[in-house]
Amino acid sequence: MMSDARRELELRASWTSNATAWTRAVREGHIASRRAGTDAAIVRACERLGLGRVLDVGCGEGWLARALAERGAEVLGVDGTAELIELARAAGGGAEYRVVSYEALATSTEAAGPWDLVLCNFALLGESLVPLVRGLATRLAPGGALLIQTLHPWVVAAAAPPYRDGWRTETFSTIPVEFTAAMPWYFRTLSSWVGLVREAGLRIAQLEEPVQEEGGAPLSLLMECRA
Amino acid sequence: MMSDARRELELRASWTSNATAWTRAVREGHIASRRAGTDAAIVRACERLGLGRVLDVGCGEGWLARALAERGAEVLGVDGTAELIELARAAGGGAEYRVVSYEALATSTEAAGPWDLVLCNFALLGESLVPLVRGLATRLAPGGALLIQTLHPWVVAAAAPPYRDGWRTETFSTIPVEFTAAMPWYFRTLSSWVGLVREAGLRIAQLEEPVQEEGGAPLSLLMECRA
Repeated sequence: MMSDARRELELRASWTSNATAWTRAVREGHIASRRAGTDAAIVRACERLGLGRVLDVGCGEGWLARALAERGAEVLGVDGTAELIELARAAGGGAEYRVVSYEALATSTEAAGPWDLVLCNFALLGESLVPLVRGLATRLAPGGALLIQTLHPWVVAAAAPPYRDGWRTETFSTIPVEFTAAMPWYFRTLSSWVGLVREAGLRIAQLEEPVQEEGGAPLSLLMECRA
Repeated sequence: MMSDARRELELRASWTSNATAWTRAVREGHIASRRAGTDAAIVRACERLGLGRVLDVGCGEGWLARALAERGAEVLGVDGTAELIELARAAGGGAEYRVVSYEALATSTEAAGPWDLVLCNFALLGESLVPLVRGLATRLAPGGALLIQTLHPWVVAAAAPPYRDGWRTETFSTIPVEFTAAMPWYFRTLSSWVGLVREAGLRIAQLEEPVQEEGGAPLSLLMECRA
């Protein structure tokens, strides 16, 4: 068994290893749930909330930052993985990108904002997230919102029990691109997500469950968090 | 197809029809999920929040009101079904009981409180709940909480899709007691519950998912709602 600290390190290292594969997977539309609705859901939620100044946390290769900049937002995409920020910059578009670690977001004033929207789109993957989310909360403009989109806990646990917080391993086997490293990630139940948001000093103002077709299993959990 | 108004009437009528069967089912411990953890979960949540003055909405035959009165709370149990209130009173214990309709809770000052805790333990079964929950919100003392325990939407939909708001029918077939009427009830997704609480002017401060055994499927959703 890996220690939790070791898992956090492996999680980060996997993004460096997989930067190119991930970028291909996103840009070539190989991630089924994203195509089926989660990409559209986060863009729609941002549009509903009014765009403005947007901080895209864990922006990766930058698709969401590009999409929102195209719609008129002033976007800064930040990611701890330098390789991904390079790939984001290389793709052009109206957003800015900067390498900023999650530690820096938790403890420093980098990317201080204030931001009308802070986004974590499938970007909260570690175990100890309260300091980060608290740091993001301090970056919100008055009336601003933090949007967190994540795997739907129920759907994940239905396919792979148990329904309990804990580390799991993503092998990217459903994506037809060759990834070089498996990624440890921390599964959270719904009540754990709600508790995290509360401990970070925010509340859940709205919660969406995007679906591919009406009545079908939710593709994700999309939480709008406010001060 | 029944109209929604017709379903609301059938829902109420079912409680009158089933009052005796329901009372037996509860008092003889025939409802598996209640024994497995949801009864204990609501009592524990009330104790954690400090008891005090408690309004038990849809109290039925009164088991929860009795349990909390025994633990020192000052409890008023209200229910729209006169037969159930009679059965609750007949069981004795330290709580008071009164026939109060959900309409009266939505529109009048009956059972005005203020209450430190307002409870809806598997008691929100109709479609149009915003006026009722808003009415309950006005009855909260400063710092008070509304606790809503309900069927877990994901577990219900996994056994019987779709995952979509809508009327369903409970036949009580899993309970080894003879019920005389089926009960129409309105299924809500998680996002619909969160939206209801918000529309009623409250926010979800905490959310529990009681389980029978660690890692198992949740038995219920237990939401702590505050002003």
